[in-house]
Amino acid sequence: MCDRVARVEEPLLVERRPLPVEGRLGRQLAFIVEVDRLKTVLRASTLAADARRENDAEHSWHLALMVPVLAEYADEPVDVGHTIKLVVVHDLVEIYAGDTPLYDDEARVSQEERELAAAERLFGLLPDDQAVEFRALWDEFEARRTPEARFAKAVDRLEPNLLNWMAGGGTWGTPGVTGDTVRARTAHIGDASHALGEVMVSLIDSAERNGWIAAGQQGVVGPA
Amino acid sequence: MCDRVARVEEPLLVERRPLPVEGRLGRQLAFIVEVDRLKTVLRASTLAADARRENDAEHSWHLALMVPVLAEYADEPVDVGHTIKLVVVHDLVEIYAGDTPLYDDEARVSQEERELAAAERLFGLLPDDQAVEFRALWDEFEARRTPEARFAKAVDRLEPNLLNWMAGGGTWGTPGVTGDTVRARTAHIGDASHALGEVMVSLIDSAERNGWIAAGQQGVVGPA
Repeated sequence: MCDRVARVEEPLLVERRPLPVEGRLGRQLAFIVEVDRLKTVLRASTLAADARRENDAEHSWHLALMVPVLAEYADEPVDVGHTIKLVVVHDLVEIYAGDTPLYDDEARVSQEERELAAAERLFGLLPDDQAVEFRALWDEFEARRTPEARFAKAVDRLEPNLLNWMAGGGTWGTPGVTGDTVRARTAHIGDASHALGEVMVSLIDSAERNGWIAAGQQGVVGPA
Repeated sequence: MCDRVARVEEPLLVERRPLPVEGRLGRQLAFIVEVDRLKTVLRASTLAADARRENDAEHSWHLALMVPVLAEYADEPVDVGHTIKLVVVHDLVEIYAGDTPLYDDEARVSQEERELAAAERLFGLLPDDQAVEFRALWDEFEARRTPEARFAKAVDRLEPNLLNWMAGGGTWGTPGVTGDTVRARTAHIGDASHALGEVMVSLIDSAERNGWIAAGQQGVVGPA
């Protein structure tokens, strides 16, 4: 499995092989085919079930299942169906923008610009009403404006750290990262869910004791 | 990427590395970690964006995005949030039962028994109330009892055939399969959505003309 982030000006998949469907439904199917590329965008984390890296489609599915299982721990009540829609859509822009690893500060600098260009391109494939609807889901998630978006962001942050724990380190081994870096980058989990925030703290404490995260207060901390 | 279907009596992933969380939340996290295995269950179809085979987690995510994009074509009104939950859960049993390819009649014979044993094991990891809730979602999907389940099944059947079209054949090349096999196995798409049924017919007709499906009325037909 290799990382194949597409350039934003690359031809669409359906331009290589046009579907025999036109009009509104043709635009919707072109979008549905194009998003297949999310399966080729690799993340930094490795799976719990295998030694290979996770991709964005797998990650998005995992969140979509975590949301209904864990929704009872949201400190503000959330609409579960809407929260699942947020997580299904939240990483689509990475089709053209690529994944920005949580502990990679250099990539995080240019992230916003790359993702905005990707959103224009991708959501613009849909009929206008749906382009607005799906773009609004992504904006809602990014801005953490609603209880659903805050809980979706918390689950999005918990998942790779849970995979790190199962891998006995994973991306916690990124040079410069210490327990305090991980505490800072995961602090907003507890803003949306006190209980899940406590889970994250237990994972970090236990990983430090096991030597899976460098202990101590030095190292990269930075914003959440 | 290789196929790693787990045996139903294999230790859980969290038994290899127990999480530092107990009680109800501990059971929920054990389930969330165990379902990571869905990312290792390979399907017969290849991606539109790459030459490799798709896995069940990627497929489930793709359906979860297709549902809100295509819900307007359901002939009976559907609750979009609930339909997304059905597709997120629908393939979980394949973690222990493996994927049963649409055009593999031999595997289809033992499918039900393998999937029931898998459901007992997997949903039983959850706290009792959620075990009932998630098992009910899977039962609803399998029985096509509700408009949401019928639409979810239609989208589940459309997706691999859309990937086949983008691959210029894919699993349509399974020995013995002809245009009429594909017509029979996809007929229930039109039962849930007249418009998506017509899309499927256009894909098959065009694939026959392009030589991507063996034409003619011979071959494996069998139940949908």
